Amino acid sequence: MLRNIARMQSQARALGVDLRPHVKTSKCIEVARAQVAAGARGITVSTLKEAEQFFAAGMTDILYAVGISAHRLPQALELRRRGCALKIITDNVQSARAIAEFAREHSATFDVMIEIDTDGHRSGIEPESQDLLAVGTLLHEAGMRVHGVMTHAGSSYELDTPEALAAMAEQERAGCVRAAERLRAAGVPCPVVSVGSTPTALSARDLTGVTELRAGVYVFFDLVMHNVGVCATDEIALSVLTTVIGHQREKGWAIVDAGWMAMSRDKGTARQKVDFGYGQVCDESGQVISGYVLTGANQEHGIVACTSASDLQIDQRFPIGTRLRILPNHACATAAQFPQYQVLDENGAVSAWDRFYGW
Amino acid sequence: MLRNIARMQSQARALGVDLRPHVKTSKCIEVARAQVAAGARGITVSTLKEAEQFFAAGMTDILYAVGISAHRLPQALELRRRGCALKIITDNVQSARAIAEFAREHSATFDVMIEIDTDGHRSGIEPESQDLLAVGTLLHEAGMRVHGVMTHAGSSYELDTPEALAAMAEQERAGCVRAAERLRAAGVPCPVVSVGSTPTALSARDLTGVTELRAGVYVFFDLVMHNVGVCATDEIALSVLTTVIGHQREKGWAIVDAGWMAMSRDKGTARQKVDFGYGQVCDESGQVISGYVLTGANQEHGIVACTSASDLQIDQRFPIGTRLRILPNHACATAAQFPQYQVLDENGAVSAWDRFYGW
Repeated sequence: MLRNIARMQSQARALGVDLRPHVKTSKCIEVARAQVAAGARGITVSTLKEAEQFFAAGMTDILYAVGISAHRLPQALELRRRGCALKIITDNVQSARAIAEFAREHSATFDVMIEIDTDGHRSGIEPESQDLLAVGTLLHEAGMRVHGVMTHAGSSYELDTPEALAAMAEQERAGCVRAAERLRAAGVPCPVVSVGSTPTALSARDLTGVTELRAGVYVFFDLVMHNVGVCATDEIALSVLTTVIGHQREKGWAIVDAGWMAMSRDKGTARQKVDFGYGQVCDESGQVISGYVLTGANQEHGIVACTSASDLQIDQRFPIGTRLRILPNHACATAAQFPQYQVLDENGAVSAWDRFYGW
Repeated sequence: MLRNIARMQSQARALGVDLRPHVKTSKCIEVARAQVAAGARGITVSTLKEAEQFFAAGMTDILYAVGISAHRLPQALELRRRGCALKIITDNVQSARAIAEFAREHSATFDVMIEIDTDGHRSGIEPESQDLLAVGTLLHEAGMRVHGVMTHAGSSYELDTPEALAAMAEQERAGCVRAAERLRAAGVPCPVVSVGSTPTALSARDLTGVTELRAGVYVFFDLVMHNVGVCATDEIALSVLTTVIGHQREKGWAIVDAGWMAMSRDKGTARQKVDFGYGQVCDESGQVISGYVLTGANQEHGIVACTSASDLQIDQRFPIGTRLRILPNHACATAAQFPQYQVLDENGAVSAWDRFYGW
């Protein structure tokens, strides 16, 4: 994990931008502190609960990167009044108006970023859209601080070649910078240009015009990122420790006590180069056992099997009581199933770090 | 929820068996209490953490229905010494031996059930297997109480006609009863014969020889159970309340602030009669809005769209701020994403019930 943090930080430094890690992956104070210690400037969150928790831990520069809903504005304002430099985002005129009206009613102001759509995968305003200027001028004229523009090229998760990833990173950069230029030309200040996703952040060759990079899952990495091509399996810093509790020998199955409640239901590698089922099997020390994956999962049962050919001696390979480690498809989803991380230091000593969940 | 509880209880009563609900679905004391109040005899759990929590709430008759791993025996014994009538299960000779040895070393005894495989979907010993008698006699001769046999026909989730479900219920019954008879004939006492899954429990026509029924997800039901054919959508007692935060009008998308972190990554209806994506959209009062489902989900973003034809006026149908309710594919998985249930009583008043998670 510390190597992953250092890697992304040095990437941001090499590209000449700030790094604002997305802490939704870990939801853990200690992990975010390690990111800040490495040089992160501010954090990104996906819920106001995360904002509350990290603010309580002393982090004040927080971007809430999900389009604000009007009914959440009181909570956002309360955080700001307590000293949190919270930034909120919007991508439409109605929400921008709701922010402006709420701010006026409460004699408040908000730092607002405008969300830009640079890859068509989810939210945001297209860089050339008229709505961009409508939202920008509405916020600016209502006295809000337009903190900048932000985008997330989440469709990078669907790519798996360095060339395609570099092209997507450039598309993300160019679109977001273009949106900033249009706002500035229309008289709307737009100091910050924020882009990122783990794949594009690690694939960008030039970020001219960008001021800030955001990325989340790189802190742990996972099998989806491995298939995308931005990490090796031995860089995956999160795994689920499990025990063999039974076999169905004639089917080539070992039954382990980690099912989808432990791994999550995420099958994100199913449509990628390599389908890891519910996760890659490793020995207890974390060495990949090639060809063995969690092929099936019930709530508390997982099925370990060989993907190339049925292993009819799996009961001898993995006897009852064998401890295995499963690498996750998607670190954000797997981590969310656990109240704590069991953290190994360099000497193998274990400590517990809490994580939170909910909204 | 109360209707669902009453329905399963009356089904058990009609079939002349006890009901031992699986409380892994709710992981909530108040829900389990409602099941006990309706007539449940004991509970089933999927983790020792559940056993600890429900025992602390005063429930003493607990079946831990995942094959026991030797390293969990100290925790199981501790629970028994504190007065919990904990039953553990096994399906293999090695684990049975580990139980017997641990018990001897600690001058203890365990109530053990033998897990039977009646449908090939996961764990258990086949009713005609020699291993069945080997495990039974090993436990019995070591002084353990063989509490009985138990099976779970989880492959019933893959069926969707009343005839196939009734046939699977009969297969589950017959296999488990046969296993009990073989044990008894070999001189191993086997008082309890425990079967069940929500689909087979609701489809069984006769449970001769069975003493106990187990089922879990019926307490809330979900879209998977709807596709299986054992509930109507208006019997689904769990939903996720969300708010529209944006649109991609030309794509026919409304963006809501419930993504997979709220719904879980469970896409259990994808291979069923009707694919509900990440969930069925309802209005705030819970009325199904036919044809609209959560077609996509990121961590905190969901995409609502019409499945029959792109709705290019979705921004007018579901304006910013519209509150929607999403029915889940799989209640166990969706509920697990939340620290609390917001519980509506008959008059619409809301109270909060905690649920726990982790191991």
